[in-house]
Amino acid sequence: MYFASDNWAGAHPAIAQRLTEVSTGFSAPYGASALDRKIEQRFNELFEREVAVYFVSTGTAANSLALAAVNRPGGVSFCHREAHMLEDECGAPEFFTHGARLAPVDGVNGKINPHKLKAEIERFPPDFVHAGQPMAISITQATEIGTLYQPDEISAIAKIAQAYQLPLHMDGARIANALVALELTPAEMTWKLGVDIVSFGATKNGCWCAEALVFMNPELAKDLPFIRKRAAQLLSKSRFIAGQFDAYLHDELWLDLARHANAMAARLQTGIVNSSQARLAWQAEVNEVFAILDKAHADRLQEKGAVFYQWNPPRAKPGLLAEHQVLLRLVTSFATETEQVDSFVELLR
Amino acid sequence: MYFASDNWAGAHPAIAQRLTEVSTGFSAPYGASALDRKIEQRFNELFEREVAVYFVSTGTAANSLALAAVNRPGGVSFCHREAHMLEDECGAPEFFTHGARLAPVDGVNGKINPHKLKAEIERFPPDFVHAGQPMAISITQATEIGTLYQPDEISAIAKIAQAYQLPLHMDGARIANALVALELTPAEMTWKLGVDIVSFGATKNGCWCAEALVFMNPELAKDLPFIRKRAAQLLSKSRFIAGQFDAYLHDELWLDLARHANAMAARLQTGIVNSSQARLAWQAEVNEVFAILDKAHADRLQEKGAVFYQWNPPRAKPGLLAEHQVLLRLVTSFATETEQVDSFVELLR
Amino acid sequence: MYFASDNWAGAHPAIAQRLTEVSTGFSAPYGASALDRKIEQRFNELFEREVAVYFVSTGTAANSLALAAVNRPGGVSFCHREAHMLEDECGAPEFFTHGARLAPVDGVNGKINPHKLKAEIERFPPDFVHAGQPMAISITQATEIGTLYQPDEISAIAKIAQAYQLPLHMDGARIANALVALELTPAEMTWKLGVDIVSFGATKNGCWCAEALVFMNPELAKDLPFIRKRAAQLLSKSRFIAGQFDAYLHDELWLDLARHANAMAARLQTGIVNSSQARLAWQAEVNEVFAILDKAHADRLQEKGAVFYQWNPPRAKPGLLAEHQVLLRLVTSFATETEQVDSFVELLR
Amino acid sequence: MYFASDNWAGAHPAIAQRLTEVSTGFSAPYGASALDRKIEQRFNELFEREVAVYFVSTGTAANSLALAAVNRPGGVSFCHREAHMLEDECGAPEFFTHGARLAPVDGVNGKINPHKLKAEIERFPPDFVHAGQPMAISITQATEIGTLYQPDEISAIAKIAQAYQLPLHMDGARIANALVALELTPAEMTWKLGVDIVSFGATKNGCWCAEALVFMNPELAKDLPFIRKRAAQLLSKSRFIAGQFDAYLHDELWLDLARHANAMAARLQTGIVNSSQARLAWQAEVNEVFAILDKAHADRLQEKGAVFYQWNPPRAKPGLLAEHQVLLRLVTSFATETEQVDSFVELLR
Repeated sequence: MYFASDNWAGAHPAIAQRLTEVSTGFSAPYGASALDRKIEQRFNELFEREVAVYFVSTGTAANSLALAAVNRPGGVSFCHREAHMLEDECGAPEFFTHGARLAPVDGVNGKINPHKLKAEIERFPPDFVHAGQPMAISITQATEIGTLYQPDEISAIAKIAQAYQLPLHMDGARIANALVALELTPAEMTWKLGVDIVSFGATKNGCWCAEALVFMNPELAKDLPFIRKRAAQLLSKSRFIAGQFDAYLHDELWLDLARHANAMAARLQTGIVNSSQARLAWQAEVNEVFAILDKAHADRLQEKGAVFYQWNPPRAKPGLLAEHQVLLRLVTSFATETEQVDSFVELLR
Repeated sequence: MYFASDNWAGAHPAIAQRLTEVSTGFSAPYGASALDRKIEQRFNELFEREVAVYFVSTGTAANSLALAAVNRPGGVSFCHREAHMLEDECGAPEFFTHGARLAPVDGVNGKINPHKLKAEIERFPPDFVHAGQPMAISITQATEIGTLYQPDEISAIAKIAQAYQLPLHMDGARIANALVALELTPAEMTWKLGVDIVSFGATKNGCWCAEALVFMNPELAKDLPFIRKRAAQLLSKSRFIAGQFDAYLHDELWLDLARHANAMAARLQTGIVNSSQARLAWQAEVNEVFAILDKAHADRLQEKGAVFYQWNPPRAKPGLLAEHQVLLRLVTSFATETEQVDSFVELLR
Repeated sequence: MYFASDNWAGAHPAIAQRLTEVSTGFSAPYGASALDRKIEQRFNELFEREVAVYFVSTGTAANSLALAAVNRPGGVSFCHREAHMLEDECGAPEFFTHGARLAPVDGVNGKINPHKLKAEIERFPPDFVHAGQPMAISITQATEIGTLYQPDEISAIAKIAQAYQLPLHMDGARIANALVALELTPAEMTWKLGVDIVSFGATKNGCWCAEALVFMNPELAKDLPFIRKRAAQLLSKSRFIAGQFDAYLHDELWLDLARHANAMAARLQTGIVNSSQARLAWQAEVNEVFAILDKAHADRLQEKGAVFYQWNPPRAKPGLLAEHQVLLRLVTSFATETEQVDSFVELLR
Repeated sequence: MYFASDNWAGAHPAIAQRLTEVSTGFSAPYGASALDRKIEQRFNELFEREVAVYFVSTGTAANSLALAAVNRPGGVSFCHREAHMLEDECGAPEFFTHGARLAPVDGVNGKINPHKLKAEIERFPPDFVHAGQPMAISITQATEIGTLYQPDEISAIAKIAQAYQLPLHMDGARIANALVALELTPAEMTWKLGVDIVSFGATKNGCWCAEALVFMNPELAKDLPFIRKRAAQLLSKSRFIAGQFDAYLHDELWLDLARHANAMAARLQTGIVNSSQARLAWQAEVNEVFAILDKAHADRLQEKGAVFYQWNPPRAKPGLLAEHQVLLRLVTSFATETEQVDSFVELLR
């Protein structure tokens, strides 16, 4: 019963197999092989336009390089207060940008409130050198708490980005889960709404180690080859990432895997609701379920072998928990089996 | 006939297979799994002492993090003028250390001359704030031009390192090739001679993407977990690297692969010498052969399908080439086959 | 009627005169002159212990170097949400620390609330690499909104600093104003309460350009000479700063100047209260008065020659202003004359 | 007999007096006062074009900010092997540029050899991501060893800069000494020859602390206000620097001071030549004299009160000194008196 995170899963067999297949023979390193080219082309098709794609080894690298690409002296990027890049990357965005700042923006359900975003940006009048200068906006889709920006919500943020001439970045560590839940294409959920840069995560959804940084406008990425190389993120045997994507993006495997993870979360959620032993903290929209229950009960579940985190409640919800209660985060993945879900629900009851 | 670099090879089948095996099931991410622990233990055995091991995704990351771990304000690290970290990492060491400097040291055969090293260090009197302060010495074993530091040569440099209280780093991108050529154990070639930190490369020698940064004295690495994480080098599904090492370090596979690569280079070298169409620039000691021949001939070889680089001659050897000549770098790997070597030699004649 | 900031004033005549006196003859640069030594000794007396003193050219440099001296990878420093280093230094602290983070802490009256401070620190469990690690606490005395930490309030924060082994920094851009208002000695207001590092500002209080970074424990500053030099803050003709301090710290000049500035603020405050045209936003404790009045009235004052800023209300006081109102910041200095204050009050009526 | 450096001198009385005069009254800080404007205008006149001027507190800051303004990821700047920014700034250029590299270029007489410059730049083929990318060229005028680039020598370097689209920076720590020696106007010695950015030093030549960073093309400086502020180099009471320049640039004072310093050096040089106790290492062209004499003799001079440095011989001149000899650097300044020079020469005999 592994619900700690989707990165506890391994790799999907089809991906492992494809990786083995591309393991033989010689090919040009550093992203110059035919297979690298093929996958880059695949991304063009996926996004229905010519994009610039850079493979990197971690989601943190993708997010941080996205900001580095649009870096400005005294720059300030705006993201949700609970954003992964702000809370869980040990200052990597600041490191990659040589000290540009992340400014937290509040908003319910893990999503940036556009009015608050505008107010935060307005704190930086143009040419007021003391405060610094805005440089980017970043949203996470699906969010860190398993919710989704609806298309019109992304649009509203993109309009602000455009008004202030700020690039809009999407941290898509769980982008597949979002796409299948919203029934949108990559193009529809990104540049058609005004998103400029995407951290396209595949590791959590069935790969070993495959992240792509995608620029909708390649011009924005013109310095990226140097930025990536000096950040030690240019992999020599790059077909190793290309090979994973080759299987992942083939024949909708990636969407199928995400659908499965989401379905497992939905099943888990139903089980929790019906258990009457816990309640949902909020409605899961992808593959993360947040539930509230007694700490004693949570501890017991863990003792009996259920693996999950007791999570810090969002700052936006200070009164969420009663004193004896804890918040559980339960994450499903492509590898989660129905039996695991059912066993957990059984145990919960 | 692929001799451009050992990173043109793929992964050894045993490694691909092991990777597939560890792909199933759930396990703790971020280096916390049982498999990660096992490999760490394996490194302890390998080095015959308790070491601190950190997996990273590129050799550049390993080298740069090594310096970051011993960083000082205004710090200066000393390495050979042709060192990979100085010539081929796009300033990553400077990036990871926030601008610490690499000072080139001359020396023949790709190796630091200890007298020149001492003279360079002496340019930085203690407490002379204008010049900066020494912070590390780095050697590459095997060197960038396929030569080897003999144990006494490493010792001589280590003595200087100790005299100035500087940590000694070894860039071991081809450490296996060096070990088998010198018939030394990892312990004998490193800490027993005074080496403090090792970039233990496995990618070039049969892995997909597996590099380990090894500190002989774990105390020196006490900040490394934070340094690595913020450098975006903490892999989530870290067993993916651990899995590669599991096969690589099993049953001497890694040493066998290196022996094969070295043997192919030796065969290639003999072929070149006997061809009377080219001469060796210097004696290859591991898996890199450098040969001098007419540019017209080199171009023809490439046209006929031989893949290699026409290399910049070392600065230390300004008169190496006649005007019509070029320097060839020919790298063999675990995947190089006898037939390839023989075909190349045939073509050369 | 200049109340925009205390940095609108020039230099006190005694300081200008002393500077002229020390202008002749030759003396060792880079802080090595007898005058530099004399002033360093003067700081030892002032703080009643052996301190390490470094002259720098701006308060921003002092604050940023203070953090750089205690820098840690993934480091997080805690300061008040309205702190100068967070709001008005264009990311200099992040730049000097290579991307360490400033975490805002809330609290009324411009002062860190110790309970909130503790809660923020607790968000960084030891060894939880994803979040980063605490590295320092910084308070401003007097605060950015003209209030004062009482000794017991500093103590309370210092106890937290000690509990988490974090150095405690005091931004003393207006330290003289605080000292005379609280009737404390430098020792009493700093290390005797647990403060470790002080940005000792003199520019605002009568110097041209004279800031000192003072470490109560010189051991904490052992890398500072290199850190300062590479930050371009080691002045060649350093006696120029020493000369200013020589007059400034002589015969209590600095305290007299601060007393005058504070007295002018008190007079201004009384005038405002009695005018019945404005009300105090809060009680001024040093040389900054914050008043609330109608925007139309404020605009009129500015048209008639009063120089001041209409200030952003603190985030901690969201309902401070009615819609037609603005917040005025009025700063007095050593150079403010009674007539200016009275003219302003007259105009206000 | 103070010949250690021109920064051992104090401030010229006219500058001290003007500083005192501008000390009274209130004026806008951060470069916004009428006096700041006046001096900016003065620089326009001086350079005979609209330039962008930024005051900073040290020459190291000026040089480092010049590079920061043209920074590129993986960037490499080319300067002479003995350049101040490379040898004497403790890595400040690397710090301000987040790790861009300084590549040493050889050349006799302290001057970059254009052929070697071209060869060094050619080591960085466009888009070859492993090596990094060229970003700037910097020359020092007068050079660190008291020699001068002739106009055609600057032109030759500028042509290379243009060919590779690299901005050309001039470190003018002693620019006044160069101008009067060459009898050129600022325009003639800079942009008319192809120089893009100038560190315009005044501290060594009679100011306390007055350095200006001048961009011939203001467009190149568009991010500089933010870059300077976050580097803690935006001085609050900026008229303090403006006031110094006001006297310095008035009525040719600065050129007169430089002429005096150069004349003192010439007198010193003649005295040395005639002494037959020492010989010139090379011909002084401005205010720095380099002489070779017996170490025992040099030590005696110092014992008898002559203040100077025994200097490291340039790397370009390895056989300069016999074993018992040392190299003396003797620097004169606006404050050097004829009597000092004559006393020294007397002592030398």
